[in-house]
Amino acid sequence: MAALVLFTMKKVKCSGMMLICLLFIFTKTEAQNNILVFQSDFGLKDGAVSAMKGVAMGVSADLKLFDITHEIPAYNIWEAAYRLVQTAPYWPSGTVFVSVCDPGVGTDRKSVVLLTKTGHYFVTPDNGTLTLIAEQLGIQEVREIDEVKNRRQNSNESYTFHGRDVYAFTGARLASKTITYDQVGAKLPHQVVSIAYQKPSFEKGMAKGTIPILDIQYGNVWTDIDKKVFNQLHLKIGDTIKVQVFNGKDKVYEGAVKYVNTFGEVPEGVDVGYFNSLLNFSLGINMGDFSEKYKVYSGNTWSIILSKK
Amino acid sequence: MAALVLFTMKKVKCSGMMLICLLFIFTKTEAQNNILVFQSDFGLKDGAVSAMKGVAMGVSADLKLFDITHEIPAYNIWEAAYRLVQTAPYWPSGTVFVSVCDPGVGTDRKSVVLLTKTGHYFVTPDNGTLTLIAEQLGIQEVREIDEVKNRRQNSNESYTFHGRDVYAFTGARLASKTITYDQVGAKLPHQVVSIAYQKPSFEKGMAKGTIPILDIQYGNVWTDIDKKVFNQLHLKIGDTIKVQVFNGKDKVYEGAVKYVNTFGEVPEGVDVGYFNSLLNFSLGINMGDFSEKYKVYSGNTWSIILSKK
Amino acid sequence: MAALVLFTMKKVKCSGMMLICLLFIFTKTEAQNNILVFQSDFGLKDGAVSAMKGVAMGVSADLKLFDITHEIPAYNIWEAAYRLVQTAPYWPSGTVFVSVCDPGVGTDRKSVVLLTKTGHYFVTPDNGTLTLIAEQLGIQEVREIDEVKNRRQNSNESYTFHGRDVYAFTGARLASKTITYDQVGAKLPHQVVSIAYQKPSFEKGMAKGTIPILDIQYGNVWTDIDKKVFNQLHLKIGDTIKVQVFNGKDKVYEGAVKYVNTFGEVPEGVDVGYFNSLLNFSLGINMGDFSEKYKVYSGNTWSIILSKK
Repeated sequence: MAALVLFTMKKVKCSGMMLICLLFIFTKTEAQNNILVFQSDFGLKDGAVSAMKGVAMGVSADLKLFDITHEIPAYNIWEAAYRLVQTAPYWPSGTVFVSVCDPGVGTDRKSVVLLTKTGHYFVTPDNGTLTLIAEQLGIQEVREIDEVKNRRQNSNESYTFHGRDVYAFTGARLASKTITYDQVGAKLPHQVVSIAYQKPSFEKGMAKGTIPILDIQYGNVWTDIDKKVFNQLHLKIGDTIKVQVFNGKDKVYEGAVKYVNTFGEVPEGVDVGYFNSLLNFSLGINMGDFSEKYKVYSGNTWSIILSKK
Repeated sequence: MAALVLFTMKKVKCSGMMLICLLFIFTKTEAQNNILVFQSDFGLKDGAVSAMKGVAMGVSADLKLFDITHEIPAYNIWEAAYRLVQTAPYWPSGTVFVSVCDPGVGTDRKSVVLLTKTGHYFVTPDNGTLTLIAEQLGIQEVREIDEVKNRRQNSNESYTFHGRDVYAFTGARLASKTITYDQVGAKLPHQVVSIAYQKPSFEKGMAKGTIPILDIQYGNVWTDIDKKVFNQLHLKIGDTIKVQVFNGKDKVYEGAVKYVNTFGEVPEGVDVGYFNSLLNFSLGINMGDFSEKYKVYSGNTWSIILSKK
Repeated sequence: MAALVLFTMKKVKCSGMMLICLLFIFTKTEAQNNILVFQSDFGLKDGAVSAMKGVAMGVSADLKLFDITHEIPAYNIWEAAYRLVQTAPYWPSGTVFVSVCDPGVGTDRKSVVLLTKTGHYFVTPDNGTLTLIAEQLGIQEVREIDEVKNRRQNSNESYTFHGRDVYAFTGARLASKTITYDQVGAKLPHQVVSIAYQKPSFEKGMAKGTIPILDIQYGNVWTDIDKKVFNQLHLKIGDTIKVQVFNGKDKVYEGAVKYVNTFGEVPEGVDVGYFNSLLNFSLGINMGDFSEKYKVYSGNTWSIILSKK
């Protein structure tokens, strides 16, 4: 329908109406697209995820349901936040995400839907899960879920599964246009609950960052040092980088790695530094496991310093 | 189409035809809806689940395929039975479920399709998997799969993968209305093979139950004590409950927990009793793992007694 | 549309045009069907698989997305090859598969799309992943992905995630008919990179084979001995088979198993030999774990000899 609107707009003389034209175009990027993507810390061994999807299909059988992951470690809000930025930007504008990592279920943390400037929707407890995505995609609007209107029928006796009774239900209604974004509930200030974290910086010839997460399947170590910070080292592909990794004040690793585009540029077993698929600096071993070999892990006590050799 | 039928019915004078009207309305709840939901003990590490889904898509590309879980522990029919009641009621009427936990594949256990009073279909070996769902949703009809008509072409040389060759194939044909429910095969008596289990009871001021399953991801302990039994204790939110847990005759845990609606009502690390998302009494620790801490597990040797402190 | 073409063809006098008729019929089996099936060694704990699916849905929201498995052990191309033959033949002709087990990402291994004689498409690095499927389904055509045309916009700075930027993107465009098979890129010779492996054989009264993989969920041992080789032993159901298993030159297991159609033919705990769902000879224990009990595993150092008792 958005397409139709645009088509009609083309026929209209847009001279003085340019602003309205643009408005319509912008509206287009917000239109929900029937795609609903789930993330949680429920695991896949029981039926919790399936119960959420059943509720969604009960709202509308036209929905297309997908997943980010359900293997977020229990209660790990930071990792939930990270998985959203790792994936959401690759989904089309108009996609609705439901993220349920909710250690405070039943307490007074707010249930919200964030609409980003890119037209993605995030249905979640506002407990820090939105920290990174709000920053990266920009806050267009935040609304609090009205749990009187947007709650599964006859679910009031259950206090511990808002994922099924509130978030999946509301996400499905929004994604299927059963309700408009306005009907989610009242508008909140343009902000979300954020987890404090150290940003990467460059000082005295050193790029400094943290290790927010591991590339667990392969044992690569992903830092938060982006190209803007890294480039101040003035290194080029093939150069050697001096690396120091700390856990708190303890130096866990000190070494030199080759700066490469991809692992295949070095023999098997050789340490490398490279930019990962999110364009952040990372450490790896060709066909090996950097994390396991050097006992380097992730989390808010871990930091890294890069300098020229 | 069911909707259309109902619409037409409204025009008909229903005076003497009330019974037929009701019949039509009831028929509606049985109409398959193109949704096919799989459960198995196959795991996700190999291609078995995918082979089943490929067979289903070969039957009809209009089907919408979903999963409960494929991480049922190998041969654990009881857990398969439990996952069905945990999830099926949240899926729309008309959904077809295929459950393959089939230690007796190739033996003379019957292959059946259960239609419940709620209009859900369950395609499965009749080996106890239907114990709980038949009880909770009610048996409308049971049919035995006619494996001459309802078996994948050229699959007769394979004796060990009825999940792919019979159940997924039949489930897909039923869900997509390629066959009617009658065409599944001959009608059987209104009963399914049931695993014997102890039901919760109240006697001498004590609520007695079992521990059918753990909420594994979080370490919560789920009992089968429902509100009807629990309420005879006359406890209210905030009260203290005396809890005893036994494995066989051994007392594994004795303690007192606070009766709460949700974990956030107590500080981290505190033991609680609460009603889970299936409205059964459960034990947990706010941000902790009750099962691991107290070595309380699940299965048919485990029982629990609740009383007033 | 293929159906329409065929319908029209029937009206045409096919006398001299028989060849063209056949050509049209053949074309039909190649028509993509909007089904896109993913396999990788990414695991499901992070967002990599979801990022690929987001890219695909951005190409066309009409696609139906499925999975084989994402639990291929990291870099294990052989297992990736095996999972394709275990599953692809059960999916309808016209299905597009994206397989990303890509230890050489960013090196000069070719990115290809194989079209088999059965009308299935395989989008993958040509690193051995196609070894078994090319042999089993036959090579109709191989094309190299033109990464100038078939690469996600603005993805050129990322060198390490071709799964997202090239394979998922190209697979989605092909499956949705956004591009034709010809538009994938230039035609290559009718061959794929193949991993060398020993084929089963029969000599001096013995059936000899290898153990390419385990049926991990249940601990069954799957060999590559098919019925053609096995039948030269002239055994019938109920007979006893002498089995020797070697790891390199070490004999790991020697015993006798009963030849059965299915596990239920023997009591619990008894060893059996049977044909698995891919019709290859396999070893198992009714309700037990053959691999764990006898320390028999899989891989290219493992071999097996069967003979008459």
